[in-house]
Amino acid sequence: MKFVRDSVHGDLQLDDFEVKLADTPEIQRLRRIKQLGFTYLVYPGANHTRFEHSIGTMYLASRLALNLELDDETHSLVRCSALIHDAGHGPFSHVSEGGIDNSHEELTSKLIKESQLGDILSEKFSVKEILRVISGQGPLGDIISGELDVDRMDYLLRDSYYTGVAYGIIDVERLLSNMKLENGLILHGKGVQAAESMLLARYFMYPSVYQHHTTRIVNSMFRRCLAKLLEKGVINPQEIYRYDDIDVIAAARAEENYVGEVMERLDNRQLYKRVYSLKLDEVDHPEEIFQMSPDSIEKSEAEIAQELDVDKDFILVDVPEYPTFHEMTTPVSVNGDTVMLGDVSNLVRALKDARFNHADLCIYLPEEYAEQALKINFLDYLDISH
Amino acid sequence: MKFVRDSVHGDLQLDDFEVKLADTPEIQRLRRIKQLGFTYLVYPGANHTRFEHSIGTMYLASRLALNLELDDETHSLVRCSALIHDAGHGPFSHVSEGGIDNSHEELTSKLIKESQLGDILSEKFSVKEILRVISGQGPLGDIISGELDVDRMDYLLRDSYYTGVAYGIIDVERLLSNMKLENGLILHGKGVQAAESMLLARYFMYPSVYQHHTTRIVNSMFRRCLAKLLEKGVINPQEIYRYDDIDVIAAARAEENYVGEVMERLDNRQLYKRVYSLKLDEVDHPEEIFQMSPDSIEKSEAEIAQELDVDKDFILVDVPEYPTFHEMTTPVSVNGDTVMLGDVSNLVRALKDARFNHADLCIYLPEEYAEQALKINFLDYLDISH
Amino acid sequence: MKFVRDSVHGDLQLDDFEVKLADTPEIQRLRRIKQLGFTYLVYPGANHTRFEHSIGTMYLASRLALNLELDDETHSLVRCSALIHDAGHGPFSHVSEGGIDNSHEELTSKLIKESQLGDILSEKFSVKEILRVISGQGPLGDIISGELDVDRMDYLLRDSYYTGVAYGIIDVERLLSNMKLENGLILHGKGVQAAESMLLARYFMYPSVYQHHTTRIVNSMFRRCLAKLLEKGVINPQEIYRYDDIDVIAAARAEENYVGEVMERLDNRQLYKRVYSLKLDEVDHPEEIFQMSPDSIEKSEAEIAQELDVDKDFILVDVPEYPTFHEMTTPVSVNGDTVMLGDVSNLVRALKDARFNHADLCIYLPEEYAEQALKINFLDYLDISH
Amino acid sequence: MKFVRDSVHGDLQLDDFEVKLADTPEIQRLRRIKQLGFTYLVYPGANHTRFEHSIGTMYLASRLALNLELDDETHSLVRCSALIHDAGHGPFSHVSEGGIDNSHEELTSKLIKESQLGDILSEKFSVKEILRVISGQGPLGDIISGELDVDRMDYLLRDSYYTGVAYGIIDVERLLSNMKLENGLILHGKGVQAAESMLLARYFMYPSVYQHHTTRIVNSMFRRCLAKLLEKGVINPQEIYRYDDIDVIAAARAEENYVGEVMERLDNRQLYKRVYSLKLDEVDHPEEIFQMSPDSIEKSEAEIAQELDVDKDFILVDVPEYPTFHEMTTPVSVNGDTVMLGDVSNLVRALKDARFNHADLCIYLPEEYAEQALKINFLDYLDISH
Repeated sequence: MKFVRDSVHGDLQLDDFEVKLADTPEIQRLRRIKQLGFTYLVYPGANHTRFEHSIGTMYLASRLALNLELDDETHSLVRCSALIHDAGHGPFSHVSEGGIDNSHEELTSKLIKESQLGDILSEKFSVKEILRVISGQGPLGDIISGELDVDRMDYLLRDSYYTGVAYGIIDVERLLSNMKLENGLILHGKGVQAAESMLLARYFMYPSVYQHHTTRIVNSMFRRCLAKLLEKGVINPQEIYRYDDIDVIAAARAEENYVGEVMERLDNRQLYKRVYSLKLDEVDHPEEIFQMSPDSIEKSEAEIAQELDVDKDFILVDVPEYPTFHEMTTPVSVNGDTVMLGDVSNLVRALKDARFNHADLCIYLPEEYAEQALKINFLDYLDISH
Repeated sequence: MKFVRDSVHGDLQLDDFEVKLADTPEIQRLRRIKQLGFTYLVYPGANHTRFEHSIGTMYLASRLALNLELDDETHSLVRCSALIHDAGHGPFSHVSEGGIDNSHEELTSKLIKESQLGDILSEKFSVKEILRVISGQGPLGDIISGELDVDRMDYLLRDSYYTGVAYGIIDVERLLSNMKLENGLILHGKGVQAAESMLLARYFMYPSVYQHHTTRIVNSMFRRCLAKLLEKGVINPQEIYRYDDIDVIAAARAEENYVGEVMERLDNRQLYKRVYSLKLDEVDHPEEIFQMSPDSIEKSEAEIAQELDVDKDFILVDVPEYPTFHEMTTPVSVNGDTVMLGDVSNLVRALKDARFNHADLCIYLPEEYAEQALKINFLDYLDISH
Repeated sequence: MKFVRDSVHGDLQLDDFEVKLADTPEIQRLRRIKQLGFTYLVYPGANHTRFEHSIGTMYLASRLALNLELDDETHSLVRCSALIHDAGHGPFSHVSEGGIDNSHEELTSKLIKESQLGDILSEKFSVKEILRVISGQGPLGDIISGELDVDRMDYLLRDSYYTGVAYGIIDVERLLSNMKLENGLILHGKGVQAAESMLLARYFMYPSVYQHHTTRIVNSMFRRCLAKLLEKGVINPQEIYRYDDIDVIAAARAEENYVGEVMERLDNRQLYKRVYSLKLDEVDHPEEIFQMSPDSIEKSEAEIAQELDVDKDFILVDVPEYPTFHEMTTPVSVNGDTVMLGDVSNLVRALKDARFNHADLCIYLPEEYAEQALKINFLDYLDISH
Repeated sequence: MKFVRDSVHGDLQLDDFEVKLADTPEIQRLRRIKQLGFTYLVYPGANHTRFEHSIGTMYLASRLALNLELDDETHSLVRCSALIHDAGHGPFSHVSEGGIDNSHEELTSKLIKESQLGDILSEKFSVKEILRVISGQGPLGDIISGELDVDRMDYLLRDSYYTGVAYGIIDVERLLSNMKLENGLILHGKGVQAAESMLLARYFMYPSVYQHHTTRIVNSMFRRCLAKLLEKGVINPQEIYRYDDIDVIAAARAEENYVGEVMERLDNRQLYKRVYSLKLDEVDHPEEIFQMSPDSIEKSEAEIAQELDVDKDFILVDVPEYPTFHEMTTPVSVNGDTVMLGDVSNLVRALKDARFNHADLCIYLPEEYAEQALKINFLDYLDISH
């Protein structure tokens, strides 16, 4: 039995088996993976890590398991799944996903199988079952990776705590005490308002934190560096889950020319400037933006670079993520019927449109070329009808 | 004008000149220096940096300056001094001080003089005056580096926030609004209780955080690595303020043998064990503990290593810091007289003894040798009368 | 100069003139008026008073005045207006408004004119001007009584703090630092998200707190008692602002029969039961619900009482307030143009519909008659087409 | 099963039996008893009640019971004891104790026996056993009424929350998880620091809140009113637990002359002034202060009144409570031995002296007589050697 003091949830308890899991190099590595990548360049307090998030998620999973009255073994399975669910994350969390073909869930699966993590887990559980829970399959899958999962609850609270942005505060108590487990998690009608407020928390955190325009610039800068390091074989994409943030920064600093220089800019916070922003409602077919292929993006970058007479790596075309709202489909039990959250809450429906409108395609380049870039009509260089 | 969102104090404002200072590589580097070194291995949330602490200190300094009704120029001087006061810190903050001959105040002074930080400062201020304020000289010196300074207020609050240890909560409002500036800062009698509580905050934070026994182990392990890197010339002690945490970890990982191996232990949290603890009240002349010279310590380590037949680098004799209580001498204004805090508060006097008793000399070594070390009477190997 | 410790905002400062105002019996009375009436029967912590809210509002008004760079005299006018803005509130705040013909703004005006509050104010200000600010007129009127006013900011934060319902947390910093004063307050585009989140805070606080179904029951019970006390002349409606919560409860306890009995029920939390709820979307002409006259409601109550063979005072038909959204019309400055918040935020538009749907007409009666009431088709007794 | 939202601890759960207890008039009355009496005249947020404190104490008792691994029945006994432990408190909590011969524990016992509370309790428990737990007898007695009991933990946290004074923050987690039950509660050595910090919290809360000089004035004023009401038979001391704050204020307002006038002063915050303060260390035999009999105090008041030619009821001689430190004797388990907290912590020993020195005897009277009172040498009128 061991206690870990968490700044968000207080004293968290791990049993001996969980301590053994937490003490593997695979989980300890998460102490050196920042939860929000380079967001600390925007919010100086955002230095929190996947490790804290992992034990925080375990704690919330455990509280939900208690409410659902799971038997001891299942409870333990859920706890351990939560503890290791992010083991496959690459350096700087989601920021490193761009250049990698596999999802972090797939990488977690691969990692577990080939590391001592898998050995330890199989002392007590079926590894296959753990992987199902982590990847959101089966009735227990909703707990860690569903529409209203404890992973999301923890990161909203935690990101809010460390950035100082109050929008992420959610009523975890109300959510956890209004769920029941049937074929998956079902929310009781009494929890609808708490669920609405959790969606709103996400809605507000997107432009404030996750898609803050400066966050997007630094992440784009870093992604290009990482792509180069992968291309050159300095970093092995098949083993991305072996590196931590330090490895990648040290590797980038060691590079000459482009990568070394951009890393220095990141270190000194000399960021690229946004010279163009295209909102979805400014074009006739916004879906074309999300459909742009990597090749098409690269081609646009090359042409803009040529026009400005700079190296093409200096041009970063940043296509927004498609704003998903899986929470819309959360099953809700109302007067005995099971309906979808989107059906009982017109606030939730409104959010879908509202958020869609926030997204924009942006173009960034070094400050020294920003002025000459003003002459360009960027839309002409993008494969988007206009 | 720019706003930075701080998780502890909220929206903090920087004017254009301060933004220029903050944007220098010297201040940006502080984003990559952890405030509490390796304490994150004990408290997983303790990843906060000298950068946040610097702007937080600037904020508190500014509020104090407003209360003291300083003129605009002096107010600005105090703010900028606070912003840069930690620029000379080496990697992992105080942890790197062991191997360096110069204090971090001296290094800050050297750094300012030779970097663009000095150039920018001298546009508006006398650099000499800034250095006086930072090093606690002159009437303004008390603000940032005195008995009850804003530096300490910020770090107690901040370390408390990020570790989740509530002991560091202090009544900053009451302190800041009960000070006046004469030859230095004087506390009004109404603030005595708040000052007592701030001393208690420190008192409690020592064993819980700053001198937590695991923190001491990891810091000792790291210090030995750093000493080796300095010895080998991998790191230049004269320019310690140019390195960040990443540089040192990357350098240590790149080493073969001892340093590389210890770094791997730190990464995987395979920590040395404490095999011996000597409390001050267990010996006749506790002052001898603090008077042990580096040579004497090294000699002890070598003899213990020989006895155990292991490499002498595996033995770490950790002598505690001498517990100082400068706050005892804080001038307090009571009914027109100026007395010392220690004179009006017997709680403060009691703390001195209480804290002295917490300190102990410890010996650590790798877990695999811990058992065989039990046979040793360590006191025989230390240069302490018994 | 005096400091008051507020649990929400910390140490608040009052100058000598403000202390004189605060020390009048009219403002001290607010210490004995609960901010949320009988809501403490639902949220046991909701015992906070109009007094704290008044000094909290003064504090926020002052911070806004600083941001707007108002001159010292205007700043002081705004502070004092905020301090006294609620002086005309009757016992249990809004709950007592039902039986009174005048709005609390009118009563505040009457009270100020006839009490020493007016005398003190006129030492420094034009009372007429103060009344204009309090009632939301003129450019300064928006500060305390506008679309996004500091009154609302304070009560959302405060009600959230004391009920323990986290929904009321809003980003006051962001709001206050993104306003400018022209013909009235205009929000800068950067503050739109904070404004959205403030509207959402209200949206969530309505069903959770302000219109919680139990809150509505106790308030309806109390309103009937108060109506009786006014009818009998025990309480003088023209001087409602002279009574505090204690006066009214003591008066009600002293009554025999109905009022005394209902007061005892309230004391012992033996609440009426809701036997009927009619949502707006269940009828063809929801506007008819809001248009029901007091006579029509009384007639319905009498007929239901006759049908159930009970005294008509036991039947409480509770018509919801019309959900207003003045915030929709908040002027927002976007790229030099001034538009309305409802135009730039489709989230805000969505809230209007969403909230409208929450409202319902309810019927309550004593638990002992609840079962026999099940046989009634209540809609037949209401003047609503169906 | 029912949830109550507590502003301090979050959602608290009551089972059906506990709801039945909580719904009795005896427990509901606690909603109308302020936890800190008239302290709201000093800290405007201090309007919290014995009701919230009772369910908060039940919650902490329950968490401790879980840690102690009590069986279900004992756990339930402890919860219910905590819920009702304050049922015998008179109006304004401790403030009303002065004029009553019985302790609030005795009154709780009397109340339980003669009310439906006793009937309900005896459905499930032995009332005798409940009374033993509440009055701190037997091994379970330490939980609610011991050296480090949950009653105290709750009120420190709660009083801190509502006054805004941060000193009351304690590490409840650490305390609750470091106790074991033998003949009584024993603290594990790991909890010593948390226990120290809890004692310090009390130490700081005394002068800031509980014995704040203005709090002492208003409490003294009220006590004299209450004494008169008891003397006149308006309030029955044998049934003090039937009255709430409202009853007593209404009764006092209804009085003519002295009581009515003092009540009006309290309502309008026109407080008596302190004209004399005698610190313990200013006299040779400080114990004489605590030994002053009611008669001796009354005699002093009469003589001072005569000297000033005012009614003797206007003179209030306020003798401080003797500062007790039962926590000194908390049993602590250190390396297998059980010792007392005062033995392992010299901080705790220091507190005893420190707090003793805070206490002083004070004399208050109406402001209009304050100036003429300056001529008096009050010590001559007190039965204290000098």
